[in-house]
Amino acid sequence: MKVAVVGLGLIGGSMAIELRRKHFADEIIGVENDRLNAEAALKMSLVDRIEDLDTAAAESDILVIAVPVGAAVKMLPHVLDIYAREGKDCNRTVIDVCSVKEAMVRSVHYHPMRSRYVSTHPMAGTEYSGPWAAMPGLFDGRACIFCNTEESDNRAVRLIEKLYDALNMRPIYMNASNHDVHTAYISHISHVTSFALALTVLDKEKDERHIFDLASGGFSSTVRLAKSNADMWVPILSQNRDNVLQVINTYIDKMQQFRDAIDAGDEDAIRSLIEQANKIKRIIR
Amino acid sequence: MKVAVVGLGLIGGSMAIELRRKHFADEIIGVENDRLNAEAALKMSLVDRIEDLDTAAAESDILVIAVPVGAAVKMLPHVLDIYAREGKDCNRTVIDVCSVKEAMVRSVHYHPMRSRYVSTHPMAGTEYSGPWAAMPGLFDGRACIFCNTEESDNRAVRLIEKLYDALNMRPIYMNASNHDVHTAYISHISHVTSFALALTVLDKEKDERHIFDLASGGFSSTVRLAKSNADMWVPILSQNRDNVLQVINTYIDKMQQFRDAIDAGDEDAIRSLIEQANKIKRIIR
Repeated sequence: MKVAVVGLGLIGGSMAIELRRKHFADEIIGVENDRLNAEAALKMSLVDRIEDLDTAAAESDILVIAVPVGAAVKMLPHVLDIYAREGKDCNRTVIDVCSVKEAMVRSVHYHPMRSRYVSTHPMAGTEYSGPWAAMPGLFDGRACIFCNTEESDNRAVRLIEKLYDALNMRPIYMNASNHDVHTAYISHISHVTSFALALTVLDKEKDERHIFDLASGGFSSTVRLAKSNADMWVPILSQNRDNVLQVINTYIDKMQQFRDAIDAGDEDAIRSLIEQANKIKRIIR
Repeated sequence: MKVAVVGLGLIGGSMAIELRRKHFADEIIGVENDRLNAEAALKMSLVDRIEDLDTAAAESDILVIAVPVGAAVKMLPHVLDIYAREGKDCNRTVIDVCSVKEAMVRSVHYHPMRSRYVSTHPMAGTEYSGPWAAMPGLFDGRACIFCNTEESDNRAVRLIEKLYDALNMRPIYMNASNHDVHTAYISHISHVTSFALALTVLDKEKDERHIFDLASGGFSSTVRLAKSNADMWVPILSQNRDNVLQVINTYIDKMQQFRDAIDAGDEDAIRSLIEQANKIKRIIR
């Protein structure tokens, strides 16, 4: 099996590592616009060779789009155009791994080669980026969401299920629009709250030494995602705009409830908010 | 050295473990109102015996107040009253470990035995509570803040510095009012943002299975502090009210900047906010 990975960052690089390690891929072709990242990926043997997108699409059995969603949404129709040149017998499959799905599936909804695309979101990551951040085991035991599989060729879906099975991921199926609501609540908002926390503290604590000295484990854990890369997160927040706005509004409302309860010195109200929040214990270990 | 620990929870229990392990204390007396916690602490040999507060205060060289700040602020003057009965030669020292300090030092500012009190805040913790949460190594390498040491007896301060040195903590000195500003920004707000995040997600995701399936490492890390105990956090947020309100207002303002930038589809503004937030990388590893 020949696999091409476009974008050799944290996700693309980690997939390359695992697909080779599990013998799912015999050859891995890399596509990477950043020269330094491309050279690093070759040097670390993440990929066997670097090609341009068109060559990689025409030569691979599976092409994985692992670039930020703003670029991915333009790249996907282009890859299906390349497949279209092979005609109806084209047996290649393209997937993307973006964390916004509605914009992706919409971009090729009417494309004649739509069925060669399988829309997936492996729910894994760290706050680091680039080929140096790639690591084995990143996907192990996590969920991978498959969206709108009814629009994809059946055998293509089965093949991609095997690919994620090789990464030891659990498949979950839902439509793209539900996916985007859930990820806004469970992933995207966490990043916005971390960014806002970092901004708040940096604003106040001009003396960085104090932050360094005083930061407890709790602060570090809450602010960790604020290290996340703008190249990845600007397009996510734009592409999932409506859902993200709704959850930010709900979130601001909760913060205002805390503020009002503290302002009023209403300890019962503060306790009630905290005890409701504590219910997250039942779900998150 | 006889040490009494009042409140055998995460912090009190962990101190008891370490002070014995490092041979700082020959005997550890526990004071604990909750019968189950008291029995557990005895059974786990966290303490040698359980006494009431007055006995413990009259028999220990050092008494550590490790109860929530709302109770601590009432307990501290009472302990100094007990010391006062011994007269001027009383050589005992009381400390507290609360994460709000201004209310503590204010409660005994004019007490004739004020100098026997050393105000400290070991910056360590987890989201768990109770004697079962006590663990060795909790304090290792972390900062311990000493407040208003000029109001304490010199030798008492030296003794407590030795106590925290036995826990392998780095001392930092500042006045109580600065302490409360810094902890509002670096610790208390993290808890409020986590509580609000948990409330937001629980509100939306009535189907808890989805949260469980979809929660990435990032969400778990950001929401971790939402498991924190109301008995501890209600008094912290009340006692540090003014500082906490100020930081919540700044924080809501930052969230609104994100909302407005996303709403306007202004990718440059979103990028600028994220890149400013990324500066936290320089400080938090």
